[in-house]
Amino acid sequence: MPVYRMTLAYDGTRYHGWQIQPRKQETIQGFLQEALTRLCGQKIKIMGSGRTDAGVHARGQVASFLLQTSPKSSGHLLTGLNALLPVDIRVLALRRAPEGFNARTWATRKTYTYTLAAGPVLSPFDRLYCTHIRRPPDYAKIREALAEFKGVHDFKSFQGAGSDVRDTVRNIMRASLRVHGPYAIITLEANGFLRYMVRNIVGTLLEIGRNRVSVQAIPAILDAQERQAAGPTAPPQGLCLEKVIYGNS
Amino acid sequence: MPVYRMTLAYDGTRYHGWQIQPRKQETIQGFLQEALTRLCGQKIKIMGSGRTDAGVHARGQVASFLLQTSPKSSGHLLTGLNALLPVDIRVLALRRAPEGFNARTWATRKTYTYTLAAGPVLSPFDRLYCTHIRRPPDYAKIREALAEFKGVHDFKSFQGAGSDVRDTVRNIMRASLRVHGPYAIITLEANGFLRYMVRNIVGTLLEIGRNRVSVQAIPAILDAQERQAAGPTAPPQGLCLEKVIYGNS
Repeated sequence: MPVYRMTLAYDGTRYHGWQIQPRKQETIQGFLQEALTRLCGQKIKIMGSGRTDAGVHARGQVASFLLQTSPKSSGHLLTGLNALLPVDIRVLALRRAPEGFNARTWATRKTYTYTLAAGPVLSPFDRLYCTHIRRPPDYAKIREALAEFKGVHDFKSFQGAGSDVRDTVRNIMRASLRVHGPYAIITLEANGFLRYMVRNIVGTLLEIGRNRVSVQAIPAILDAQERQAAGPTAPPQGLCLEKVIYGNS
Repeated sequence: MPVYRMTLAYDGTRYHGWQIQPRKQETIQGFLQEALTRLCGQKIKIMGSGRTDAGVHARGQVASFLLQTSPKSSGHLLTGLNALLPVDIRVLALRRAPEGFNARTWATRKTYTYTLAAGPVLSPFDRLYCTHIRRPPDYAKIREALAEFKGVHDFKSFQGAGSDVRDTVRNIMRASLRVHGPYAIITLEANGFLRYMVRNIVGTLLEIGRNRVSVQAIPAILDAQERQAAGPTAPPQGLCLEKVIYGNS
């Protein structure tokens, strides 16, 4: 049975996140499955590399699906899906994948960015894609803190309350900050992320950048293994899933 | 009586343009006047440098208003307005202006940009701010054509049908194109613009860039002085009022 892999971009503003909800809320996965089912005339389940939460964006989400029939042209599927999908969800690429490919279990790394816009007034063009902060925090401190998060740690303190994932150890391979003009872009790459992990790390980084928490406190926050030890959850609109990596690239 | 000048940015997506409408449609001017009236406790009329049409954006619209009372602090007005306005309209700057200042009649030049995004799939993040074209047009031809539009011409052929402005002569001081990646940004600066003028010029440029109209036809299109001679009206979402210039700067 032919397996397909697609790369997706979406503006998460008006969605209740990636994952189909029991109540009829609008979700990315829901719209994709509906479009694909309509296009192929059979019920199709789409597997995402992972969930993104309500209001979170993606420029490089990856999803896979299996057809019960003979293969269809990838070009036809891509064009057909984009014709049926709302304009804030786009299929950027679609191709046949190796047998057994699963966008979730085969993913080896993911890259997220979190964008802050500092200044007295938030531009209307940034309102859906950046988190507004009035004063720039201490970026040197945030860079020091990012270095502390790098590597293999138990991120239980940064897992959203109510999440029941048992293995909370993750490996952050990249943790960096770029500042240009009023924008500060935090990039985190890891072998996986816990629920709200990026937003909880960013919330903690902002506390550090505002001198409310010291960089030296990070090991103790990690050791505590409880959510209350870390900072608040940063809002969703600054977050974007940039890339999902399979194998080494 | 104190006169104020403010610089505004807005995402025009959900508005019926700048100008207050007789029916209760949402307009930028309407929201601004309502916020200012509420803030100052008196009915205040706001004068914009000019109208922008439905769906058109601004990064540097300028507007003026007169208070019937003693002067108020500019900082207080700016903060208060931004607190009352929807987040897709922002006051970027506000200050006292010289007596008699009028944002419309004192304006000497305006700069508009029009952004095209070329490629098979339009990014969801560009959908509200760019006009999508599948294939890149001939940019060299568009550059040649832009040079033809520069200078003093009667732009009657580029005026929206139904507009009753008599003097249709305008001076385009700058007409340029920058291309980076999939984006093409056309910049036009003039001493004034007729209704739909930028969008009608862009529609004509696209016809030229697709080899449906020749660069050499431009003088005849201008000479015709009728709307049908020029190309179609390009859609609003790619258009942005970047700057209004008073005096020489």
